Amino acid sequence: MQDGTVTSPRGYRAAGIHCGLKVSQPDLALVVSDLPATAAGTFTTNKMRSAPVILSESRLASGRAQAVLVNSGNSNACTGAQGDADARAMTAAAAAALGMPEDMVVVASTGVIGRPLPVERITAGIPSLVAALGSDGMAAAHAIMTTDAFPKTAAVQVDLGDGVVTIGGIAKGAGMIHPNMATMIAIMTTDAPVEAAPLRAALRNAVGRSFNCISVDGDTSTSDSVFLLANGAAGVAPIAEGGPRYGAFLAGLTDVAGRLARLIVKDGEGTTRVVEVAVRGAASDADARRAAGAVMTSPLVKTAFHGGELNWGRISAALGRSGAEVAPDRVAIAIGDVWVVRRGVGIPAAYPEAEAGVRAPEVRVTIDLGLGEGAFTGWTCDLSETYVKINSGYLS
Amino acid sequence: MQDGTVTSPRGYRAAGIHCGLKVSQPDLALVVSDLPATAAGTFTTNKMRSAPVILSESRLASGRAQAVLVNSGNSNACTGAQGDADARAMTAAAAAALGMPEDMVVVASTGVIGRPLPVERITAGIPSLVAALGSDGMAAAHAIMTTDAFPKTAAVQVDLGDGVVTIGGIAKGAGMIHPNMATMIAIMTTDAPVEAAPLRAALRNAVGRSFNCISVDGDTSTSDSVFLLANGAAGVAPIAEGGPRYGAFLAGLTDVAGRLARLIVKDGEGTTRVVEVAVRGAASDADARRAAGAVMTSPLVKTAFHGGELNWGRISAALGRSGAEVAPDRVAIAIGDVWVVRRGVGIPAAYPEAEAGVRAPEVRVTIDLGLGEGAFTGWTCDLSETYVKINSGYLS
Repeated sequence: MQDGTVTSPRGYRAAGIHCGLKVSQPDLALVVSDLPATAAGTFTTNKMRSAPVILSESRLASGRAQAVLVNSGNSNACTGAQGDADARAMTAAAAAALGMPEDMVVVASTGVIGRPLPVERITAGIPSLVAALGSDGMAAAHAIMTTDAFPKTAAVQVDLGDGVVTIGGIAKGAGMIHPNMATMIAIMTTDAPVEAAPLRAALRNAVGRSFNCISVDGDTSTSDSVFLLANGAAGVAPIAEGGPRYGAFLAGLTDVAGRLARLIVKDGEGTTRVVEVAVRGAASDADARRAAGAVMTSPLVKTAFHGGELNWGRISAALGRSGAEVAPDRVAIAIGDVWVVRRGVGIPAAYPEAEAGVRAPEVRVTIDLGLGEGAFTGWTCDLSETYVKINSGYLS
Repeated sequence: MQDGTVTSPRGYRAAGIHCGLKVSQPDLALVVSDLPATAAGTFTTNKMRSAPVILSESRLASGRAQAVLVNSGNSNACTGAQGDADARAMTAAAAAALGMPEDMVVVASTGVIGRPLPVERITAGIPSLVAALGSDGMAAAHAIMTTDAFPKTAAVQVDLGDGVVTIGGIAKGAGMIHPNMATMIAIMTTDAPVEAAPLRAALRNAVGRSFNCISVDGDTSTSDSVFLLANGAAGVAPIAEGGPRYGAFLAGLTDVAGRLARLIVKDGEGTTRVVEVAVRGAASDADARRAAGAVMTSPLVKTAFHGGELNWGRISAALGRSGAEVAPDRVAIAIGDVWVVRRGVGIPAAYPEAEAGVRAPEVRVTIDLGLGEGAFTGWTCDLSETYVKINSGYLS
């Protein structure tokens, strides 16, 4: 099974409704486990953290949660003490309607920054939201969207040898996306039984190879959050850290997170091309990440990809300013499998074939720095006039 | 005198011609001092440095130069050993035509990266270029342009008490512009007598408060260079480091460099608004620069300015990810003189007046981090569809 959502694992229900934060689109989502679950989260590294981020991180210190409440249309960020109170009020209303302790509810908000949250519309909507809970996760996937063009879902089944567990997820995000942080909202669920500590380790590992490897525009949100609930409903033996069962679970989780992450890049605001940037031969993995990051966020590189132009000089220039160790006469660059630069210098005979590669809807760039064993692979998108249009009229 | 060029100081001639690197626009410029001059330069921090950057920096180690040769249309960057030979051939041809030692000629190239330089067109054009030398600096200002919409010039007279010296300059740059490096080409000249060491110190200081404070797109070129020649033709006593005469000279140099730098931002590709970002109250000057840099390069902030929207939440988010020390509840943000955020929270009553401010052609943003004495002021521009259009079809 490759398709599915947060309700694909056993013992989860979800819902999404319109409560009035947006004009008419769905704007309030809930994911609930039938049983109390172990839980983990990763949150934005932005120092301007939203009220829901601060509240949810603090609650997840217990390693337990049973419900995730998300609104779109307003991020409840840069909203001061009122924002803190509003985030708590949201979880209190959901906990009351669900009949569970308030501290088992975590929360995320996404949308415009710096405007007071009309929290009464959310609390008024919660009874309808709870009434709508069911086995279809698509309404929740829709209700967490902001500028997203399509809902993002993924699920996978993992055979542990002694039984099969399922991992599912939904995500949103199309702008303010940058690597090395959890820069969007994702909710993942599993019916695997995993204690809090190994669950946290697995989430950190999976996020590091998925959501932290993508960039749309280099901007990091104040709000973004990844949640993972594990309720054990699959009825297999607990998964401890290490060993083949944990490895299989981690691979499945990374698969779901990676697919959700790449869907976010594909839906990047104004995206017409998805670009994979694989750096190898770096002096260290950190250097490889720095080099890839500079290429993935360069407006000049991204506009060249938009135009379908083989302007590898802009890639070289981005590498040169990345902060990574770079020896100009050792750099090699390939588009797909075609090497267009070796020892830092272009190979004109290779250009025609590579030019076809950069005009494809999915472009693969490999950069070999020729220095060491460091490697990193990330995903970005082109920069189009449409991105500018979307973001120059966001408030109106 | 506020207007002028590299030929405003005594004892300089300049020329600009078409030699065939571009289809029909001027593409080769020369600035010559009648006397051997002391000289200083600052160059890109990009590790992929072009051949002319490497050659010119090495020659300026002597502290002397007499001519600056610049071509536009091809940057001679990422061109390997052939690029080094081509840069030398350019200076050799100019030195022969001018009858001066080759090591008194420095060189810069700007344009597309990674294509072999058609150096024979340049060497063939040099006799005409030398024949065209005269007292008008505008042809040289035109010939160094790439995507620039207008030539950039500035000059100033400085009264030292014992006499008046003149400082003039020309510059090019409209994209690949980012703070904290010399990220464009500028040639400045003066008839002041200044030894090499104080001249270097003055240039470093002036560049730090001008060209290193601007950003168009966050991309740093492989080629960019600032040159300063001082030929002493004004006939005043030598200017040593320190004291009021040096202070007056430095102020004049900073004025010329600052005006050229702001003209580059005004001419930023697709720019419709120039935005001054002044950060104060930072924990350190370095933190202030980091905070301003994140705001000045954020695609979300820059598109909001393009739309004339008061989206201060995006400014807050950029501050939060800048790496600078930030206390969310101490941040204040003003548009012009109107404070729209205090203690991290918006002041809706101030929005109408501030909204008019962000729709003006010149926007002034003040950010007070409320933590210390660190300050930095920089200049950036909005991000428009036109920027994307220009840069997605650069090669064609």
